[in-house]
Amino acid sequence: MKSSRLVLSMFVLLLTLTGAWNQTSKGPHAATTNNDKAEISALLDRWARAFEAHDVDGIMANYAAGDVVVAYDIAPPLQYKGKESYRKDYQEFLAQYEGPLHVEYRDMRIVSSGDVGFVHALERFSGKLKGGQQSDMWLRYTGGLQRTNGKWLIIHDHVSVPTDFESGKAMLDLKP
Amino acid sequence: MKSSRLVLSMFVLLLTLTGAWNQTSKGPHAATTNNDKAEISALLDRWARAFEAHDVDGIMANYAAGDVVVAYDIAPPLQYKGKESYRKDYQEFLAQYEGPLHVEYRDMRIVSSGDVGFVHALERFSGKLKGGQQSDMWLRYTGGLQRTNGKWLIIHDHVSVPTDFESGKAMLDLKP
Repeated sequence: MKSSRLVLSMFVLLLTLTGAWNQTSKGPHAATTNNDKAEISALLDRWARAFEAHDVDGIMANYAAGDVVVAYDIAPPLQYKGKESYRKDYQEFLAQYEGPLHVEYRDMRIVSSGDVGFVHALERFSGKLKGGQQSDMWLRYTGGLQRTNGKWLIIHDHVSVPTDFESGKAMLDLKP
Repeated sequence: MKSSRLVLSMFVLLLTLTGAWNQTSKGPHAATTNNDKAEISALLDRWARAFEAHDVDGIMANYAAGDVVVAYDIAPPLQYKGKESYRKDYQEFLAQYEGPLHVEYRDMRIVSSGDVGFVHALERFSGKLKGGQQSDMWLRYTGGLQRTNGKWLIIHDHVSVPTDFESGKAMLDLKP
């Protein structure tokens, strides 16, 4: 009796540790193993810390090499093809800010199966622009990832705000 | 000799039919089986034909049921949660147009593994607005898909144009 309770306790502990009771692992996300979800989540955290610190090498370490990366950024053009052009985009974007930025994610969902995954979240960027003005905006982020040689890397990004068709304005002041 | 040549021909035909020689199935997309790629591509074609015809039921048939769908559309708000709110967004968008629209995809990439996939492409929408004005714009599209009970369905959309930070305008007149 006692040993069977011990086995049960260890089973519950194992379930808890592996995250099998994590709410987001159920339903439509059942295909996502918790380990993959944790690895992709950790990648996004590394991305955010590097972005906050203006660390472009740290940012780019989360992207696949060469021409595999295709990004639709909030800044033009329509698309960035390849890691090098996207790196320049990051440099130009971060050059607008003085000092550290702050990144906050909301409503993040990570979905993966085998060696492919995608993630989407609302993303808040805040920081001080070089003119001294405070910037604070909520963006929509979608990322496409692939695991190569056991390592998850981003191969596609999409970052945007909605469009107000009446005024033609980009809606940079929306809040979730 | 003749029969072995027949076998070789049939093998080549089979490779061609299954798309195994399709350029985009190589390299980083090797995880995508050609059959899944073909099914996701067919889904996007069905979506485009339904969109062109203002067929909202036909459009929504490509999306998963209930609250699974989360969409970041070109129109506000920041996100649409659930199929029903997204259906209304489609109805409002299409109501701006008189007669059929035309959809064109460019630089499409489909990546999948197991039961999860994503797709991205530049997407051209053209048609006549109700005021009589011709509308023609290039958008960026990213979709996240999941296969449930053998059927691929969209669970996430992201549609946008870049932002011109100097003018605050949405860049609706970019061309690839």
